[in-house]
Amino acid sequence: MLPSDSDDERDNNIPDGPGATSIPPSIYIIKFHQNTKREAIEWLLEKIEAKQKYGGAELFVRSEPQKQTQDFSVRELDQFLFGDKTLDSVLTPSEREYCVRHELEGIRAKAEDAHVAGYPEIKMFPGQSIVDVYIKEELITDFYPLHDRVVLEDLGNRWYKSIFHGASLEVLFSPFTLPSQSKRSSCTSTSRLSKRSEGDEDTREFLDEIRNYFGESVGIYFGFLGFYTLTLIAPAILGVIQMFFSVDTLSEHAFFAAFNLVWVTVFLELWKRRCAELAYTWGTLDRTHPPVARANYWGDMRQNPITGRFEPFYPVWKTKCKLFFVSIPVVGFCMLFALWTMVVAFWAEEQLIDWKRQYGSLVSVFLNFPSAIYAGIVWLMNFHYKKLSHFLTEWENHRTDEEHEWHRVSKLVAFEFVNNFSSLFYIAFYIQDMDMLCSQVATMLIVTQMINHFQEALLPLVVKKAYNQFSETVVAELKKHPWTEGFFVEPVKPVHSSVYEEQQVPVLSLDSKDPRILQAKEEAELDPYSGVYEDFLEMFLQFGYVFLFSAVYPMAAFWAVLNNVLELKTDAFKLCRLYQRPRSRKVAGIGVWQNAFELMGAVAVMTNCALLCLSPRVRPLAPNASPVEWVLIFVAFEHIILALKMSLVRCFPDRPEWVRDAMDRVIFHAKMALRNERGKKTRRHLSRRFRSVHGMPRSGSRSRATTPVAQNGSIRRRSSDYRDYRE
Amino acid sequence: MLPSDSDDERDNNIPDGPGATSIPPSIYIIKFHQNTKREAIEWLLEKIEAKQKYGGAELFVRSEPQKQTQDFSVRELDQFLFGDKTLDSVLTPSEREYCVRHELEGIRAKAEDAHVAGYPEIKMFPGQSIVDVYIKEELITDFYPLHDRVVLEDLGNRWYKSIFHGASLEVLFSPFTLPSQSKRSSCTSTSRLSKRSEGDEDTREFLDEIRNYFGESVGIYFGFLGFYTLTLIAPAILGVIQMFFSVDTLSEHAFFAAFNLVWVTVFLELWKRRCAELAYTWGTLDRTHPPVARANYWGDMRQNPITGRFEPFYPVWKTKCKLFFVSIPVVGFCMLFALWTMVVAFWAEEQLIDWKRQYGSLVSVFLNFPSAIYAGIVWLMNFHYKKLSHFLTEWENHRTDEEHEWHRVSKLVAFEFVNNFSSLFYIAFYIQDMDMLCSQVATMLIVTQMINHFQEALLPLVVKKAYNQFSETVVAELKKHPWTEGFFVEPVKPVHSSVYEEQQVPVLSLDSKDPRILQAKEEAELDPYSGVYEDFLEMFLQFGYVFLFSAVYPMAAFWAVLNNVLELKTDAFKLCRLYQRPRSRKVAGIGVWQNAFELMGAVAVMTNCALLCLSPRVRPLAPNASPVEWVLIFVAFEHIILALKMSLVRCFPDRPEWVRDAMDRVIFHAKMALRNERGKKTRRHLSRRFRSVHGMPRSGSRSRATTPVAQNGSIRRRSSDYRDYRE
Repeated sequence: MLPSDSDDERDNNIPDGPGATSIPPSIYIIKFHQNTKREAIEWLLEKIEAKQKYGGAELFVRSEPQKQTQDFSVRELDQFLFGDKTLDSVLTPSEREYCVRHELEGIRAKAEDAHVAGYPEIKMFPGQSIVDVYIKEELITDFYPLHDRVVLEDLGNRWYKSIFHGASLEVLFSPFTLPSQSKRSSCTSTSRLSKRSEGDEDTREFLDEIRNYFGESVGIYFGFLGFYTLTLIAPAILGVIQMFFSVDTLSEHAFFAAFNLVWVTVFLELWKRRCAELAYTWGTLDRTHPPVARANYWGDMRQNPITGRFEPFYPVWKTKCKLFFVSIPVVGFCMLFALWTMVVAFWAEEQLIDWKRQYGSLVSVFLNFPSAIYAGIVWLMNFHYKKLSHFLTEWENHRTDEEHEWHRVSKLVAFEFVNNFSSLFYIAFYIQDMDMLCSQVATMLIVTQMINHFQEALLPLVVKKAYNQFSETVVAELKKHPWTEGFFVEPVKPVHSSVYEEQQVPVLSLDSKDPRILQAKEEAELDPYSGVYEDFLEMFLQFGYVFLFSAVYPMAAFWAVLNNVLELKTDAFKLCRLYQRPRSRKVAGIGVWQNAFELMGAVAVMTNCALLCLSPRVRPLAPNASPVEWVLIFVAFEHIILALKMSLVRCFPDRPEWVRDAMDRVIFHAKMALRNERGKKTRRHLSRRFRSVHGMPRSGSRSRATTPVAQNGSIRRRSSDYRDYRE
Repeated sequence: MLPSDSDDERDNNIPDGPGATSIPPSIYIIKFHQNTKREAIEWLLEKIEAKQKYGGAELFVRSEPQKQTQDFSVRELDQFLFGDKTLDSVLTPSEREYCVRHELEGIRAKAEDAHVAGYPEIKMFPGQSIVDVYIKEELITDFYPLHDRVVLEDLGNRWYKSIFHGASLEVLFSPFTLPSQSKRSSCTSTSRLSKRSEGDEDTREFLDEIRNYFGESVGIYFGFLGFYTLTLIAPAILGVIQMFFSVDTLSEHAFFAAFNLVWVTVFLELWKRRCAELAYTWGTLDRTHPPVARANYWGDMRQNPITGRFEPFYPVWKTKCKLFFVSIPVVGFCMLFALWTMVVAFWAEEQLIDWKRQYGSLVSVFLNFPSAIYAGIVWLMNFHYKKLSHFLTEWENHRTDEEHEWHRVSKLVAFEFVNNFSSLFYIAFYIQDMDMLCSQVATMLIVTQMINHFQEALLPLVVKKAYNQFSETVVAELKKHPWTEGFFVEPVKPVHSSVYEEQQVPVLSLDSKDPRILQAKEEAELDPYSGVYEDFLEMFLQFGYVFLFSAVYPMAAFWAVLNNVLELKTDAFKLCRLYQRPRSRKVAGIGVWQNAFELMGAVAVMTNCALLCLSPRVRPLAPNASPVEWVLIFVAFEHIILALKMSLVRCFPDRPEWVRDAMDRVIFHAKMALRNERGKKTRRHLSRRFRSVHGMPRSGSRSRATTPVAQNGSIRRRSSDYRDYRE
């Protein structure tokens, strides 16, 4: 918010920055569709500027392109101003962005808002998020926050530009830079809230900086990536050892497999604790309020039984019914279909090889057709399945963002698992060709991931630059040409800005040379950041390649480590340069990914035991065992590893002691505060009762230590008769 | 407490009962050893009567036999007096007992109390429970609460005397008598604390009555017993069906096995929810204070990081080290030793059978020797192991009662498991004799449990009556005889009562005809109730017999149901008549037993699959399968069942929604109260800051809805320029 924006402080030109006494602005871009009716625009803007008690968001709106600067509700603010905090340091950039978006998405239809103003055909139900309806109906075409270029530049310089030194590797080793003792003790001595801006002052921890700008979900992703890469180093070393020294005995094979499998559990458990530390430090683990309903949650408006606030309400049993009787069968069917196409593709390939043997080399032209067609079908299925899973999850109507994400991502992950691993399972356990499996895993791991890096980071940049240059040249050339003169008009102004000129939409306009408008136009061309899903999926698939088949391809971990060091860089680059500013998501952990990785760890135990059992290199090591005994050895081995994993999970508490203590302390103090509050109400009642029984009037406002009954009892007097304790 | 006990209310002779305004008394008997020094007695009594702030318990002491009536600290009381509650209905008998004991055991040695007064050789460390030291050193020989005969009589009449009708079967069907809607809604509308005495007014729920008198742990035991018996009915019916209709196909066998195994999981998950409901209704699930250290916990006195109170503190890592490096290896060794003796016994028996074949019938005399010796060794091992596990757990020094119980019972259960089931495993998987297994399970299930009933309920009563009659007759006869005249003196008075007469111990004496003294003498002869351990162990072993081998002996469930209906009665009888008043234990669940039953359920999956795989009745059903395929079928079956169980565990939330909501609401309101409290502190700071920035002095005590910044901002004025929201 430039101070000149506010009507009554036009002359008070204090610049943004650390010295400013106002909170630095967060700018959100809302681009309406060209043809959106003036009425609908005005109605929404009205809602945005309205006071919260009338269901509005209390934000500023500026036109051309529209800007809102947040009005931070000071009702809550007094909680945050501990010690030497100022208004500027209270909120991180990501938190400011979150506040603005939360207010915008929290504008909900009331019972009387049956439809969008000006569009009687667009119906709304009470409690629906209005901004969301606008986006869904394409009345709003763009909806994104602007980058804070000063902060971003500073962050990027130290992050992705320094390849192998400096702050960039702090992310990798962040598991070792736990909150220092001084931080911890301060965290235990004051409230958790005061921790927030300690992170601002103390830039030692680089993850904090990432989180401050990109939000908690991105911060936790990088935390995970660093932690995961670190823990991969041990399997990588073991893999190299296995590569260069021959493994000759059954017990050696068993040891290497068991180590990897147990290591996975230790990693996941330690990560859970680490994650709890991060989330606690960032204030997302222990929230004062129960999770609010997400923006798209719909249902009758009803009082929340916990907070007493009005919120949409949708019966849980309906969600569960939809989940169990529709979604799960549909997802299961899709997975079976994917499996079936995979088997058909393999069968077709085998058929072609047969035909080639019969009819000669003519057929060999078609030999790659099945894989190609299969790849095409997978791509198509993926595309449609993504939509389907999104639709299903939306339809299930989960209340919180977390639950929604959990169910959406779990659907996607299940399908991706089948698509990516079913062919490997087919090779491993149906064809039972370990060499083919080896080469397949290596290809997928190395080639696919390299392609990913290229696709993610380099391709968009190169292509966009090339495309921009090309189109500019073409346009310039065309403009010069006499034939096309007249076709090129100046770009039309955004729809409601022109409406404003015509029909006086009551929104202040910015100067057209305002740097914010230029920035908004630049960033409009960037892709929106779709969240950490793709990044986690990549890690998940890699995790699968490394651990599902580590018994036959132990080098996988080594390649994965190399890849991840590169990944740290490309992800950083991608976030800073290639995407619109990500919407910060307040998450307390990695959500469904934790479950997915754990499940993969359990499946890995089974696959590794089965692979060892089948492996032609291992079988001759115990020539005396009968086939049944041989199978039973590996069944027993598998059970032992699984039991070990289960007991390890039990042994590690999910949260470190200091986090538990800190959270318990808050709850304890809170309950004591509640007790005090309630005690005041009931004390009067009590004293009245005692007055009536003993006939001794006493005041209800006595100090709490000497309560009526204690005085009325005989202990004190009696014990002082006999002896005196004041020694 | 008869009011005449208190010095200044001697004339105010209000009787105990519903009309009384004082809280009904809880009487605790402390019997000192005859030779305990006067100094030590006086020192302890002083501590008991001392005010809490000096480390005392604030209780009354009366001599001959000593009585304390509790002084209920009214500091806490004002929290409980909602609506029409009176002082009498606030606490249940078990809660009163708990309060007195808690205070007595909470008397701890201070730094200056290096040893027991009068006994320089009995050292104490700071924070040790003094009463506990007295008991351990046998300065106190008896320490038990007196029964409340009025309540007990009423409860017993309706409970164990009515064999098959009335309130007694309510326990069995208590899972269906969930807190009614009216109760629930009242629970949601007011605080959970108000629920307590609703249970008193509404006697519909019989479990509540059991809990009110015997405490939460006994209440939860009967809840479990009823619930477990109910869920056993389905397997019992299936078992009878399997008995009378032949099971012919592989899939039928698989179905019956799978049903039982999955049913176990459903039962355990539903029980967890039911248990949470009970615990919540009884106020043990969600306590205001973090769990206090148990009486025998020792360590340096230190401030609790959560509550700020002084408490003993012992580093957790030391406990863990002791657990992992000493206790677990020791327990493992004991289990191996038990296993080894079992194998030796079997081997010896086989050897004898061999010899019998060689040397004829002479050897057959010794044929039962190995089993007999084995039984003797098991009994001996059990006896010593119990002591060992108690010692180890005490030495590990767990902080809370729950943890202590968890570790103590888990050690015992592991050992009992080996003792009771190892021979069955040996028969099933080493000898592979399914008929022998069947008869063995039937014997153990039916015979052992019948013996248990006899031992538990009938034997003590019969023996004690016979013994009493015998000894009375003998004494009467002897008294008549002139030779023995003079040997029979009247029983000596308890030690410190005589001391009182000689040396004036400052304790008021009761009349020797006081009914309480007679009652105390009667109840001194009863056995103390050792807790629900034995009862749960019985159920646990039964659960094992029923489900571990249900594939070969499906009728087990039927016998178990019959047994449990009887068990409900004998346990009730035992509690009401044969034991001293149980000390109430505030528990939120069945603790380690939940884990033990879950683990048993998982083991049952493996044993049943293995038994089916081995069973001579099942093998011919798939004659075409190769041995390896046959094994793999059951491995796959086992994995599927285990996966199903895991996903079921995930599907059931541990606590019902209404409990979660109610607990969340308390935490929410508590946090809001904390916020208000903190807000008051920081508001002054905030208003000072704003005054300095804007140069506009404003008062900090404005109404919270119209805060300084909101007024300072421009929204309200601007928006009212354009439109008016007050429509």
